[in-house]
Amino acid sequence: MSKPTDHQGRGLRGIRPAGPMKDLEAPRITEAAPLVHRITVGWGDCDPAQIAYTANIPAWGLLAIEGWYKYCLGLNWYEINLDHGLGTPFVSLAFDFVSPVTPRAELEVAVYISRLGRSSLSHQVAASQEGRLCFSGRTTAAFVGANEMKAVAIPDNMRKSIESYIARQGELPEEKKRA
Amino acid sequence: MSKPTDHQGRGLRGIRPAGPMKDLEAPRITEAAPLVHRITVGWGDCDPAQIAYTANIPAWGLLAIEGWYKYCLGLNWYEINLDHGLGTPFVSLAFDFVSPVTPRAELEVAVYISRLGRSSLSHQVAASQEGRLCFSGRTTAAFVGANEMKAVAIPDNMRKSIESYIARQGELPEEKKRA
Amino acid sequence: MSKPTDHQGRGLRGIRPAGPMKDLEAPRITEAAPLVHRITVGWGDCDPAQIAYTANIPAWGLLAIEGWYKYCLGLNWYEINLDHGLGTPFVSLAFDFVSPVTPRAELEVAVYISRLGRSSLSHQVAASQEGRLCFSGRTTAAFVGANEMKAVAIPDNMRKSIESYIARQGELPEEKKRA
Amino acid sequence: MSKPTDHQGRGLRGIRPAGPMKDLEAPRITEAAPLVHRITVGWGDCDPAQIAYTANIPAWGLLAIEGWYKYCLGLNWYEINLDHGLGTPFVSLAFDFVSPVTPRAELEVAVYISRLGRSSLSHQVAASQEGRLCFSGRTTAAFVGANEMKAVAIPDNMRKSIESYIARQGELPEEKKRA
Repeated sequence: MSKPTDHQGRGLRGIRPAGPMKDLEAPRITEAAPLVHRITVGWGDCDPAQIAYTANIPAWGLLAIEGWYKYCLGLNWYEINLDHGLGTPFVSLAFDFVSPVTPRAELEVAVYISRLGRSSLSHQVAASQEGRLCFSGRTTAAFVGANEMKAVAIPDNMRKSIESYIARQGELPEEKKRA
Repeated sequence: MSKPTDHQGRGLRGIRPAGPMKDLEAPRITEAAPLVHRITVGWGDCDPAQIAYTANIPAWGLLAIEGWYKYCLGLNWYEINLDHGLGTPFVSLAFDFVSPVTPRAELEVAVYISRLGRSSLSHQVAASQEGRLCFSGRTTAAFVGANEMKAVAIPDNMRKSIESYIARQGELPEEKKRA
Repeated sequence: MSKPTDHQGRGLRGIRPAGPMKDLEAPRITEAAPLVHRITVGWGDCDPAQIAYTANIPAWGLLAIEGWYKYCLGLNWYEINLDHGLGTPFVSLAFDFVSPVTPRAELEVAVYISRLGRSSLSHQVAASQEGRLCFSGRTTAAFVGANEMKAVAIPDNMRKSIESYIARQGELPEEKKRA
Repeated sequence: MSKPTDHQGRGLRGIRPAGPMKDLEAPRITEAAPLVHRITVGWGDCDPAQIAYTANIPAWGLLAIEGWYKYCLGLNWYEINLDHGLGTPFVSLAFDFVSPVTPRAELEVAVYISRLGRSSLSHQVAASQEGRLCFSGRTTAAFVGANEMKAVAIPDNMRKSIESYIARQGELPEEKKRA
């Protein structure tokens, strides 16, 4: 739109390619884990059945995972793509719906790493309201160059940061399904 | 909001319970199958990587399945819930992303039934642009009373309509994954 | 979906009408004003121009206003509709876009009341990132019975709570437009 | 994500700048006007009040306007940005909500031009279901270079195409408001 005052010359001045690929300057140590990403459920998220519409659920899973990138690597997807030249496109996702989500309480999405590959990363999420499990999910993403979309190895300091998170995340939640 | 002129007393006059459960008056015979549900991909569906944002993909899968209900049963989800007293909440979904979706062509989502149970229904979708497979998905939903949310057997004429669709849908697509 | 453990019999047990109309038990005094509702902007909110897609902006304005209801009246829209029998449908909205929104910082949406009528309420919002004004908006909503959708006077204790907010909100922001 | 087969080297191969600014090769003559953009309203578009959630309404207005670009100029926003080097960011929008939108019928959004400036364009939309006016809207957008975000004059053949549309669109609808 107008009058850019951007600190980095990206994001406020139109379409431009991602910057050159670059790692974190040092590994990051996350203090506590797993990250619990909190979401306020709104009226517009619900359908006439008076519960959250299904398509919001994978969307919330992804929001929690984007929150995890910011927490673990210090970078949201905008920053990892445009400033670090790395894309992390999803290869697959799967969600199980255990009980309805409503606006009566915050949605708490715990985020775990279930697999760290050379150039791929799998997350597991478990979301609950007031201690009641609402849904669980599993996703896998690839690391690629943001401008070329070719697979790349996860850079060293990012890998070490992820390993540090894994060391602290505790046990992966059992995959509970609806009876 | 205002000045309702509604033909059915529902939908334009505020919150009210679903009507009593009722089946179709007769089975419906679908002419051709599988249904191909067409979606126009917009600018706002894309992210800065210049391809559709991942969370749109399960959302489009669900839209195609809602289109299938209208095609196969003559009822969208609003009608099946409020007029026929039946909810069809999803129990699980899983999607594999094979190649990016962009606004350069229509998205064509073919919809198949992979399993018809006593009170559950599993769909499989395969979505492509210009003949290139973009994603595939699998979902399972339960049939429940819309006001009580208890599982119910799929009513007879609905079941026959679904069986008629299955008979014409052709072979289920093989599940292709990204290499 | 399943296994309701709901404290109120609403929201986890299927479609049901709103409860009878009821006011707050007492007026609420809000401590500080204006409310600043904070939003984390995500990758999926941005379009290929590398800024937030326009349609998110009225959606964020509404989220901030729903946050205001929770702050000022202690009720989100789900609660005011289903537990208090009151709907607040919008009659109009208007937004001016001053500078782009990106994921580089939180979006801070300040919420003001510009008019309190007998059965209508007008909000003004001003949203900024890092002190830079991004957009402003104006909305008007009607108060109606949730089940009948007929206009009703804003109940006394809700009105007093809103008046208390107005008394503390400070001066309405000037409507800045893009040059 | 993978295996690009793209005809233009854009959209399937990662983030890249927009192409150089270019006009249409010739003006386009639209046959009939106003364009009526049709939208299928889904279950997930509705909130627990059993009508479309308000934030969908500006979103649908924008979809109809993107449909108008494709109809009038032969280019959706993805193509005008990436292939023609032109962005069209919105400066403002305003919508009036006259009666609820539901999934009981298609939503028909008629699109008009209310003002064609040197580098700005104002649209008016009027949306109805089964002949009942649901909402009306007004928007203004600027034409800018997609890579620099500086205002530019609307290129000649685009301007002639728009003038041709205006000549055929008929009378602008009166702005009806809710009583």
